[in-house]
Amino acid sequence: ARDIHLAVVAGDGIGTEVVEQGLLVLDAALAGSGVGVSTTDFDLGARRWHATGETLTDTDLDAIRTHDAILLGAIGDPSVPSGVLERGLLLKLRFALDHYVNLRPGKLFPGVASPLAHPGDVDFVVVREGTEGPYVGNGGAIRVGTPHEVANEVSVNTAFGVERVVRDAFARAAARPRKKLTLVHKHNVLVHAGHLWRRTVEAVNAEFPDVTVDYLHVDAATIFLVTNPSRFDVIVTDNLFGDILTDLAAAITGGIGLAASANINPDRTAPSMFEPVHGSAPDIAGQGKADPTATVLSVALLLDHLGLHTQAKAVEDAVAADLAGRGSAERVRSTAEVGKDLAARVAG
Amino acid sequence: ARDIHLAVVAGDGIGTEVVEQGLLVLDAALAGSGVGVSTTDFDLGARRWHATGETLTDTDLDAIRTHDAILLGAIGDPSVPSGVLERGLLLKLRFALDHYVNLRPGKLFPGVASPLAHPGDVDFVVVREGTEGPYVGNGGAIRVGTPHEVANEVSVNTAFGVERVVRDAFARAAARPRKKLTLVHKHNVLVHAGHLWRRTVEAVNAEFPDVTVDYLHVDAATIFLVTNPSRFDVIVTDNLFGDILTDLAAAITGGIGLAASANINPDRTAPSMFEPVHGSAPDIAGQGKADPTATVLSVALLLDHLGLHTQAKAVEDAVAADLAGRGSAERVRSTAEVGKDLAARVAG
Ligand SMILES: CC(C)[C@H](C(=O)O)[C@@H](O)C(=O)O
Ligand SMILES: CC(C)[C@H](C(=O)O)[C@@H](O)C(=O)O
Repeated sequence: ARDIHLAVVAGDGIGTEVVEQGLLVLDAALAGSGVGVSTTDFDLGARRWHATGETLTDTDLDAIRTHDAILLGAIGDPSVPSGVLERGLLLKLRFALDHYVNLRPGKLFPGVASPLAHPGDVDFVVVREGTEGPYVGNGGAIRVGTPHEVANEVSVNTAFGVERVVRDAFARAAARPRKKLTLVHKHNVLVHAGHLWRRTVEAVNAEFPDVTVDYLHVDAATIFLVTNPSRFDVIVTDNLFGDILTDLAAAITGGIGLAASANINPDRTAPSMFEPVHGSAPDIAGQGKADPTATVLSVALLLDHLGLHTQAKAVEDAVAADLAGRGSAERVRSTAEVGKDLAARVAG
Repeated sequence: ARDIHLAVVAGDGIGTEVVEQGLLVLDAALAGSGVGVSTTDFDLGARRWHATGETLTDTDLDAIRTHDAILLGAIGDPSVPSGVLERGLLLKLRFALDHYVNLRPGKLFPGVASPLAHPGDVDFVVVREGTEGPYVGNGGAIRVGTPHEVANEVSVNTAFGVERVVRDAFARAAARPRKKLTLVHKHNVLVHAGHLWRRTVEAVNAEFPDVTVDYLHVDAATIFLVTNPSRFDVIVTDNLFGDILTDLAAAITGGIGLAASANINPDRTAPSMFEPVHGSAPDIAGQGKADPTATVLSVALLLDHLGLHTQAKAVEDAVAADLAGRGSAERVRSTAEVGKDLAARVAG
């Protein structure tokens, strides 16, 4: 018998509510498989910061490292200054644990309403770089608060960092039926970083000759996401462009209530982290209104990452079946009801 | 009798085709007004670069400066390395002529099809900063082409630069019925630049107490652009976010064939520049297929900037009438036919 040691960072706002349902579905998926789950709760986020001033200590990080994976709900609260928890906790986890592949599927499930009039078949994944780019925190300001203030933000891009994420994206594209990879950047303006990305994609393409490659500027990519999202198979892009494109991708595939993500360390030198794309949504927290589906789909990505493909598929199928039935539903279910229904489908 | 001295940079690809129609409509709009137009053609773009290696010389720039305004078609060709014409010509014009307000209306005209199922009333403007941010060309790379390459891009933001564009955006918001300004940034990650933008918006708000302000992270802004674009009135944002959001805005309001833009120097220390948002579209160049409407709407922005508000309104009304009739059209008209029809409507 094998046990999954799961670090649970429920976090703030609706985070706790959706994680509870994610864990329920995880248990259901593993029932009878011989694989158990043991969880360790980490009290991280706004409450902890207010109580202790800490975001993520070395002790927390060391403890998290001993786990097989992390399930994260949501981080952030208006009572905490902007950037403190994002940079001190969420991004610190991604960087410290070397989550260089931030994987975000963009899939329109049958029966789900899209804001697009004619979405077509939408089924792509975004491979967003997770440890470089404008997210490195390499910026600063002088003469703050004066008319002479200068505030800089530096995007750092390395051959090492770009190559490993590009190779991962190629491997994912090669494993999919359409075998298509789209690089998104803005190399006509951000010429240094852009040309590094471009050259790297060209070079790594030699290792994956079956994969067709194309390129879009980030501005043009947003156009295609709303006019022809079916054109995308695998997108590889930098940290900031990936952040923007994946929120848009979530919007066109039914909203952030459904959008899953995986922060993956493909080398498995540290646990990978699975989290819904949505935030802590303080406006609806504590009301049982949050849709736990994005967290449940993140649990499917977690199972996949741990090699439990059958169980991952069962969770995704349960979500697909649940979503297909929503149009005809008599009323909107609570967070717990959706979780219960999904767990029942997985078990059934 | 007054004369508008217009610098014309038709540029590459469909640039020449659409500019020709823009000028036709401009003439029609001014007929009988006592205002004439004299044009100077500037041979800038791919052809010139191939012939001479030049993008924009000091002599060109000095000559352009003597004009009242610039009408630009499109710049760029696949035969020229990425970045050469963008940074050496288009962005050089914007920076050298201090076009710090890059104004891009997002308006869905009646009768125009949107890719959104339920777009609602869409009528906002994006005030994109035009002379700072990640567009400053302040980047570089070391060990290029080796496994140890590091490529950096620096976003430079100054109190001076942010304040002037924010003030312009507030003034525009104050002059509109809804009086609403949305700052778009990513201040939870790009904390130094983000906090400068935030503090500046708060400070300038005191001068415009009637204007309601809100804030969206750039990723969330893309969601609202496809789920509830009516929520936007005036958006103010940095150069790169503005680039991305305005392509998306164009897509939801009928495509880049209709999207106009103005690169404005509000202090009038140099001529402002008016250009469609679209590029040179080499795939359809020379075939009379390009829609000149975006250029014609840019001509309306040009007339407005020069104080010719009646004529600007006549051009916009002609476009609105033309667009309203397109659904029932028997066939797609050529570039020249659309231009002729618009000129006739303006004259009539
Ligand atoms: C909260 C924020 C730092 C984060 C990001 O920008 O990566 C979020 O938007 C996301 O996409 O996971
Ligand atoms: C061509 C390119 C440099 C330009 C930009 O990024 O500003 C274009 O996309 C635009 O929006 O006008």
